[in-house]
Amino acid sequence: MRTVDLIEKKRDGARLTAGELTFLIEGYTRDRIPDYQMAAFCMAVLWRGMAMPETADLVAAMVATGERLDLRRFGRVVDKHSTGGVGDKTTLAVAPLVAACGLAVAKMSGRGLGFSGGTLDKLESITGYRVDLSTAELVTQLERIGIVLTGQTADLAPADGKLYALRDTTGTVPSIPLIASSIMSKKIAAGANAVVLDVKVGSGAFMKDLPSARLLARTMVAIGKAHGLVVTCELTDMEQPLGRAVGNSLEVIEAIATLRGAGPPDLLALTRLAGAEMLVLGRKVRDRTAGLARIDRAIADGSGLAKLRELVAAQGGDPRMVDDPGRLPRAPHVATLRAARTGYVKAIAAGAVGLASVHLGAGREKKGDPIDHRTGIVLYAKVGDRVERGAPFADVHHAGRPADDAAIEAVHAAVAFSARPVPRRRLVLGRIAG
Amino acid sequence: MRTVDLIEKKRDGARLTAGELTFLIEGYTRDRIPDYQMAAFCMAVLWRGMAMPETADLVAAMVATGERLDLRRFGRVVDKHSTGGVGDKTTLAVAPLVAACGLAVAKMSGRGLGFSGGTLDKLESITGYRVDLSTAELVTQLERIGIVLTGQTADLAPADGKLYALRDTTGTVPSIPLIASSIMSKKIAAGANAVVLDVKVGSGAFMKDLPSARLLARTMVAIGKAHGLVVTCELTDMEQPLGRAVGNSLEVIEAIATLRGAGPPDLLALTRLAGAEMLVLGRKVRDRTAGLARIDRAIADGSGLAKLRELVAAQGGDPRMVDDPGRLPRAPHVATLRAARTGYVKAIAAGAVGLASVHLGAGREKKGDPIDHRTGIVLYAKVGDRVERGAPFADVHHAGRPADDAAIEAVHAAVAFSARPVPRRRLVLGRIAG
Repeated sequence: MRTVDLIEKKRDGARLTAGELTFLIEGYTRDRIPDYQMAAFCMAVLWRGMAMPETADLVAAMVATGERLDLRRFGRVVDKHSTGGVGDKTTLAVAPLVAACGLAVAKMSGRGLGFSGGTLDKLESITGYRVDLSTAELVTQLERIGIVLTGQTADLAPADGKLYALRDTTGTVPSIPLIASSIMSKKIAAGANAVVLDVKVGSGAFMKDLPSARLLARTMVAIGKAHGLVVTCELTDMEQPLGRAVGNSLEVIEAIATLRGAGPPDLLALTRLAGAEMLVLGRKVRDRTAGLARIDRAIADGSGLAKLRELVAAQGGDPRMVDDPGRLPRAPHVATLRAARTGYVKAIAAGAVGLASVHLGAGREKKGDPIDHRTGIVLYAKVGDRVERGAPFADVHHAGRPADDAAIEAVHAAVAFSARPVPRRRLVLGRIAG
Repeated sequence: MRTVDLIEKKRDGARLTAGELTFLIEGYTRDRIPDYQMAAFCMAVLWRGMAMPETADLVAAMVATGERLDLRRFGRVVDKHSTGGVGDKTTLAVAPLVAACGLAVAKMSGRGLGFSGGTLDKLESITGYRVDLSTAELVTQLERIGIVLTGQTADLAPADGKLYALRDTTGTVPSIPLIASSIMSKKIAAGANAVVLDVKVGSGAFMKDLPSARLLARTMVAIGKAHGLVVTCELTDMEQPLGRAVGNSLEVIEAIATLRGAGPPDLLALTRLAGAEMLVLGRKVRDRTAGLARIDRAIADGSGLAKLRELVAAQGGDPRMVDDPGRLPRAPHVATLRAARTGYVKAIAAGAVGLASVHLGAGREKKGDPIDHRTGIVLYAKVGDRVERGAPFADVHHAGRPADDAAIEAVHAAVAFSARPVPRRRLVLGRIAG
């Protein structure tokens, strides 16, 4: 088999066999196939796409490059994944809640890149919190407290890490089969039996429109099916940020508030939805209604919050920050934005808010950049809300650098007002399941 | 400027500016941009294409990476280029003919790859012939005898050599803007004022159909115009091999026969056409009719043949091989293929004949492979010819290796017969000029 023949086959729109994909992915991971051939292949995939069974074969080849975690002793393993958006801190609330309901949660998360934040960065707002657990540490902690939130270990689907770094520099990120296989290969390698997915749609998400989001969701559901996993997928709105807070420490504070029963309605709704779905797939409850009730109880009785405290303590973080979120790091300056006249919020450009948070230091433009956990944005109104003249609609938490003025201005420009009432946005746009 | 942004721009179908193309090509040639980014870019170009002015800007960027030969003291410099086909030895006949007519010819040729032969390989059938002249040697020889046939020097458009090697391994060869810019950047860097192009069309050529060939021709004419060159382009048939001989030594013998006035009609026709066109563009004759007459005279009076002899001697080759082609290397074995019944030649699959010659050792499957100059195929009939039962229709010249049987069989299979008369093929399919 020659690599160039396989590139040409895909370039000409043909379907690759499982054997051909294994040759490519295995060869690339073991450095037998050079970056330049894989880069051309990825661009050809972006151009021509992949059939569903072909994408499932690609995932199998990626999983086979590394270890596959065996967590069967913990019962059904239900993973959760969001394709990423602005202000999406759902994992921080939902993971402790379902763990408190008796479902083992071993979740490997990622870092933020571009306008989208990452769970690991958010967790590192908590002093001391470790995100680099070894596989052995992961298993021990899961046995002891039933929850782990850590980073991807290098021995799971190593092909994915190498491919992602290449795609990032070669303009080959936005390919649905490549995105789907990247996500699903990690979930399968991490030992999941089921996955609850949240595909974000809108200006603050990687999928800008509903048809692309649906295709991505269907692709991931099909991959799951081909690999014996149950996958359900919600399509949710990312035209405005989720919740109120954008920025690492600020988002942890909001997740803690949600666990205390005081979270913003949209974040609470998604947390309940994802949590109930996980409990159903994990066979802890009979149906979604029972799942929602169980999640509500874990909020009301404080067991979700207690589980977060346990998690933070187990991974070396300062648990007092969970008890008293005032201890979390805060930016030294807050600029409050106020409405120039009475009206209704017409739009909050999620992508622009995400980029403003990057410019405030809360995110990174390229891999490896340091971030400032303290900075970010809190929005006091959602689309459709009425705001009185002079009332604050956002706080920008910043470090006081000269460059921050532009970011503050960008947040201002991201919020559009209308004199006439504006309908609220629907949060859940659809559901796709296998 | 970031390379990834330019890849994404092309990926999304936009047009790059001259400055952006210079950034890419200059950066790649100087090793500031890695192979993997350029590979993704080339696949995006293959996918999205390039506008004509954009392609002309690409050529300018490629030319600017190296030296540009100044041959103005030799008057108008007219280059000649064929996109390559099976049995195309036109350069070997036409270059000495136009040089004998007083037009300075400094032609840099390439090697064969895949089914297509290369002028350098053919010339090296002549013992001692050097194809690695330095720029200084080239100029001295051009002053002395008015003709040079050598290889590409490394200091002309170095971007092209590097890009071509990358495209060859990444499935990005068949892109019209990339093919056109590769050809034209070398012609411009080599100091041409005018170029006579022959774009081959058919199964034995890189352009398989007339629309692609026309687009390639129009692209090269437009590039020429943008750079102040006059370019004319013939589109010629490559559904059957040109002339009778395929294989290096065999093709040199046929070119010499053509210079003696005894060449096959199709090769003679193309030689006269290209020669007349070069003389017109070189302002040695008033029009094409006068050019054809001038070429005919250079054949009849033996001055073309004498010029080939001079060329071979000047570049270290054995000139007795020109006087007596029987001295050229010959394969030890000849298998003669005969017609099973009386009929007409319906088709001669040029690509299959070219591949058979590669398998006989006359060509190379990958760059750097050694070749056997002696082997090849001589076809005694063209499409439309009547062949009597038992009459020979081809000789296969081979080294007597066991693997040669399959190649002989492939030549047999490449020639199709019909019981009923078959029309002859038209050789010249069109002409495009600026």
